[in-house]
Amino acid sequence: MIKVGIIGGSGYTGGELIRLLIHHPHTEIDFVYSTTKAGKPITEAHEDLLGLTDCCFTDTVNTEVNVLFLCLGHGNSKAFLEQYEFASHTRIIDLSNDFRLTYDAQFQNKTFVYGLPELYKQQIKNAQYIANPGCFATAIQLALLPLAMAGLLKNDVHINAITGSTGAGIGLSSTSHFSWRNNNISWYKPFTHQHLGEIGQSLKSLQKQEVSIYFMPQRGDFTRGIYATAYTKFEGDLDQATALYQSFYAEAPFTQLSAKEIHLKQVVNTNQCHIHLHKHENTLLVTSAIDNLLKGASGQAIQNMNLLFGLPETEGLQLKATFF
Amino acid sequence: MIKVGIIGGSGYTGGELIRLLIHHPHTEIDFVYSTTKAGKPITEAHEDLLGLTDCCFTDTVNTEVNVLFLCLGHGNSKAFLEQYEFASHTRIIDLSNDFRLTYDAQFQNKTFVYGLPELYKQQIKNAQYIANPGCFATAIQLALLPLAMAGLLKNDVHINAITGSTGAGIGLSSTSHFSWRNNNISWYKPFTHQHLGEIGQSLKSLQKQEVSIYFMPQRGDFTRGIYATAYTKFEGDLDQATALYQSFYAEAPFTQLSAKEIHLKQVVNTNQCHIHLHKHENTLLVTSAIDNLLKGASGQAIQNMNLLFGLPETEGLQLKATFF
Amino acid sequence: MIKVGIIGGSGYTGGELIRLLIHHPHTEIDFVYSTTKAGKPITEAHEDLLGLTDCCFTDTVNTEVNVLFLCLGHGNSKAFLEQYEFASHTRIIDLSNDFRLTYDAQFQNKTFVYGLPELYKQQIKNAQYIANPGCFATAIQLALLPLAMAGLLKNDVHINAITGSTGAGIGLSSTSHFSWRNNNISWYKPFTHQHLGEIGQSLKSLQKQEVSIYFMPQRGDFTRGIYATAYTKFEGDLDQATALYQSFYAEAPFTQLSAKEIHLKQVVNTNQCHIHLHKHENTLLVTSAIDNLLKGASGQAIQNMNLLFGLPETEGLQLKATFF
Amino acid sequence: MIKVGIIGGSGYTGGELIRLLIHHPHTEIDFVYSTTKAGKPITEAHEDLLGLTDCCFTDTVNTEVNVLFLCLGHGNSKAFLEQYEFASHTRIIDLSNDFRLTYDAQFQNKTFVYGLPELYKQQIKNAQYIANPGCFATAIQLALLPLAMAGLLKNDVHINAITGSTGAGIGLSSTSHFSWRNNNISWYKPFTHQHLGEIGQSLKSLQKQEVSIYFMPQRGDFTRGIYATAYTKFEGDLDQATALYQSFYAEAPFTQLSAKEIHLKQVVNTNQCHIHLHKHENTLLVTSAIDNLLKGASGQAIQNMNLLFGLPETEGLQLKATFF
Repeated sequence: MIKVGIIGGSGYTGGELIRLLIHHPHTEIDFVYSTTKAGKPITEAHEDLLGLTDCCFTDTVNTEVNVLFLCLGHGNSKAFLEQYEFASHTRIIDLSNDFRLTYDAQFQNKTFVYGLPELYKQQIKNAQYIANPGCFATAIQLALLPLAMAGLLKNDVHINAITGSTGAGIGLSSTSHFSWRNNNISWYKPFTHQHLGEIGQSLKSLQKQEVSIYFMPQRGDFTRGIYATAYTKFEGDLDQATALYQSFYAEAPFTQLSAKEIHLKQVVNTNQCHIHLHKHENTLLVTSAIDNLLKGASGQAIQNMNLLFGLPETEGLQLKATFF
Repeated sequence: MIKVGIIGGSGYTGGELIRLLIHHPHTEIDFVYSTTKAGKPITEAHEDLLGLTDCCFTDTVNTEVNVLFLCLGHGNSKAFLEQYEFASHTRIIDLSNDFRLTYDAQFQNKTFVYGLPELYKQQIKNAQYIANPGCFATAIQLALLPLAMAGLLKNDVHINAITGSTGAGIGLSSTSHFSWRNNNISWYKPFTHQHLGEIGQSLKSLQKQEVSIYFMPQRGDFTRGIYATAYTKFEGDLDQATALYQSFYAEAPFTQLSAKEIHLKQVVNTNQCHIHLHKHENTLLVTSAIDNLLKGASGQAIQNMNLLFGLPETEGLQLKATFF
Repeated sequence: MIKVGIIGGSGYTGGELIRLLIHHPHTEIDFVYSTTKAGKPITEAHEDLLGLTDCCFTDTVNTEVNVLFLCLGHGNSKAFLEQYEFASHTRIIDLSNDFRLTYDAQFQNKTFVYGLPELYKQQIKNAQYIANPGCFATAIQLALLPLAMAGLLKNDVHINAITGSTGAGIGLSSTSHFSWRNNNISWYKPFTHQHLGEIGQSLKSLQKQEVSIYFMPQRGDFTRGIYATAYTKFEGDLDQATALYQSFYAEAPFTQLSAKEIHLKQVVNTNQCHIHLHKHENTLLVTSAIDNLLKGASGQAIQNMNLLFGLPETEGLQLKATFF
Repeated sequence: MIKVGIIGGSGYTGGELIRLLIHHPHTEIDFVYSTTKAGKPITEAHEDLLGLTDCCFTDTVNTEVNVLFLCLGHGNSKAFLEQYEFASHTRIIDLSNDFRLTYDAQFQNKTFVYGLPELYKQQIKNAQYIANPGCFATAIQLALLPLAMAGLLKNDVHINAITGSTGAGIGLSSTSHFSWRNNNISWYKPFTHQHLGEIGQSLKSLQKQEVSIYFMPQRGDFTRGIYATAYTKFEGDLDQATALYQSFYAEAPFTQLSAKEIHLKQVVNTNQCHIHLHKHENTLLVTSAIDNLLKGASGQAIQNMNLLFGLPETEGLQLKATFF
């Protein structure tokens, strides 16, 4: 059994990890660290786990675990790793944005590999340290990677992506206040969202030239999921686009091409990314949908863990969609 | 024109008062006091008012206004009134629960009248100080008053009432966090909600005996409105019940008896209370619905103001329902 | 008093018209025609009106009314007008898309003027027949008209607009089934929505050249409102853009420029359109928000009626926002 | 492998069964029958299954399957079974209300056992035909069974239970229209809901006397889940009540007693029932929450299948809660 430690277990991504690991056939949760909830039962924060665990949050760390998940706020993973010396065998999967960009990927004696399995499966299998991608970054890269691979992102790409409230985390804020957010729509950080760095880096690694992206992130009045539309000029026909995507994702168990138009809820509470292609005149519209907490965070982290340990990629991730 | 001052104008009930007063034909907003927003435009907190006002919140108080609305947290109205001496002509309408119960109604040299027009219209007309009823208390009293008047609340009354999130105010809290509350239902304070005091007091004033109430308040996953069901033993038939309600509310412009079953949204964003009667065997089920921020707070406060100043009761309250 | 007839009064736009007209100081509803509800009380379809009207739907038409509102499905207005001969004084405001395009505007002996007051106020004042604009078309035109007027829509314009479910009307459909739509997001008619015709026609009338628009309409999981983002290249700075919009909307009582970022709910249940300008590098982002049933339909129809009859443009439209 | 047939596979409960069975380690879906979708891919109705199955709905029935699930509208199961002769080894689990009541349980040569494992586990293990309980009936029985077992339901029991929209199924209706239901609350069938029959039958089997129940079912503005409150007079203290429940559910893997107050979402998308006990004066309040489509329908059907085939009760039902 893989012994697992979770740092930051009382938040949303930490909670999702526990939900997944508790049913994973090859893992055993060694400890769940939380400074705010130490000593209290895990079920006090994650009430759905009643009857499934009677463990408590701790404020101590076992540095000998086989794998460590860091579920800390952005900027805090580095600070945490500076405090502890983990065993040489300990693999680390970081869910923050601390190590995602190339110039952040080297830290202490550790090299972090960008954990997007659809792009770097082999590197992940051979890695010890993983920088787990951002949620918007996952949805958008999966929508664009096949085009970048074919060198076809030569014109502006226009992206609108709407996210559920869990993307903003467990912290209270005016834009996650129910009375404000219910039935409301708004944007934030137009054209400047921090995930553009990851996205641009990946696309450039495939296409060897900068891609010009206009990205409008929006706050939706739902809890889970990201629904992204991306369009750009594309000279080929729909069949050619389809062939590119089918080929690129031939070995990707969680990324599905849908001939039918997609809606957000068909991926909620799964680790799937569904992609739909639509051609209008000389514009290709790519729509992608993921669960921001799963394929966009904790599910993908488990997928990376599976790859790190030589397990089937889908182990513990065959989830029942909520759907309704 | 009636000069109006609002204390606590950046919260929900304060905002609703501004929305109503700005279109009221006989009022003029003199000042809107807010310690947290003083100096900032009112539209920074209430963005819908863009183009309708360019006033700012203040931290000074004009003690000569004709009417003062207190929109402070419970317990803070007394403290506020101890700091200021208002003109002898100033009428005061308090939206907190500080003065609603008989033993709280006398404060300084002021006598507060309980501001439920359906019960105390004459007293309100002659009053200077009004304790505006609570939201649950309004919905529940309007459902039960005609029975109490007829002395028919002799058996247990069972009440379930579900409220929108705005009932919890603008303050951030875990139960008003969107990710928690969306699609969720929960109860709080079963059988002990603080509004039971007001309710019991009014019913007893009519019926001259204690009424035994079982009240389950619930948190709904919507923003506005209260939907209450109340049932008790009733020996008469539906026509007799209907006659009691029609008679009791004959002069109440905002309380309507619906022969058809009611749903919450038919009163949202209005000052109406809709009531439906249903008889099953020897049980009478009374359903009532109000907008918690209007008939349950700021709308009723304006209704009381109209009565205090001899205006038509509906002035400034002929509102378009949101309905959808 | 202006005598009003409504054709198609049991649907959403018909209902909103009744809600507005019932409180309008200069109108009197003469009849509300509905083939499906004829003979039944208006409150059976629009329960919020309980106590405000006890009229019934009719299946007869008074051809002598002063103004007639047509709230029929697209394509049905022409058919209806072919059946009846209205008085020579009867003004007609059609809410369908039957007469909006120039080549549809001439019908029988009637000339329909496109009823967007921000663009054609003088023509509307002198008109007898009005083609009321579409909801998306209103939100998008108001976002773009000042740029078109200045001849600045020379590059591609990228638009994403998300609409509430009431935009789809009262008819039952799988994409308006609650279990499907709640917490869901999806698009429809990408780049080909039928409102592009109206939009292009208006923009071209100002700028004298075709505008290239990429329009992605989306279905949101809320009931009321349209939230639109539109961006294009703009060489000037934000102050120059602001000056264009301020100047263009100087006489528009319902179109407000917001210095602060806007969110959808600040216009819901009002006739307002709020616009926010944001500049990033050489891109100008224009965000607009309206209530699809009011400024996007019935509210604008009343605004047009006011203009037709020489009344103040805002008469009967000073509405309390729902806001929460 | 257990060969499974599903009748009525394009609806909600059929879809949930497919979602569960596709990951169940001991089952193989033999056919999914749907008259409306025959010939079309299962993913056309259940888009989340993209990549997980490429089977199609059929209009033919394999009468040799090991287990058959009937997901037909109430009243249609009998009609269906009259048309087909199934193999003598075929077990049948019916999700309608056709066979739940004692006087319906005998049909043709078949005896249906009421499939509530918490009450009839041994009988289910030995049965061939199962009448799967109703959703409200499950939530309410699980809240009351321990009290009935102890003979303590001697006074009136007052129940309020609110259900998600999926309880009304895939059929379009005015009360499941998004524009109506979003942000709305309403009741239906007060005191007369058809599940009262099942509930009363079970309680009486334990307590040997009629139980007087007042049941108010409500429609909530969410998709999944039932949240029920039930209270009655109870002379003992909270510890005594807790002991009764702990004892009764000692062997029930899906029914958990929560010391902390519960909210609906902690069980959504799981097969769990969470129960909370609260004592106020001499009233015991029992709150229960289930997912109406899982523990209230398809999940419980799988639980019954597991029991019928001697599998661990939780096989294939260790589900990740949606939680948010």
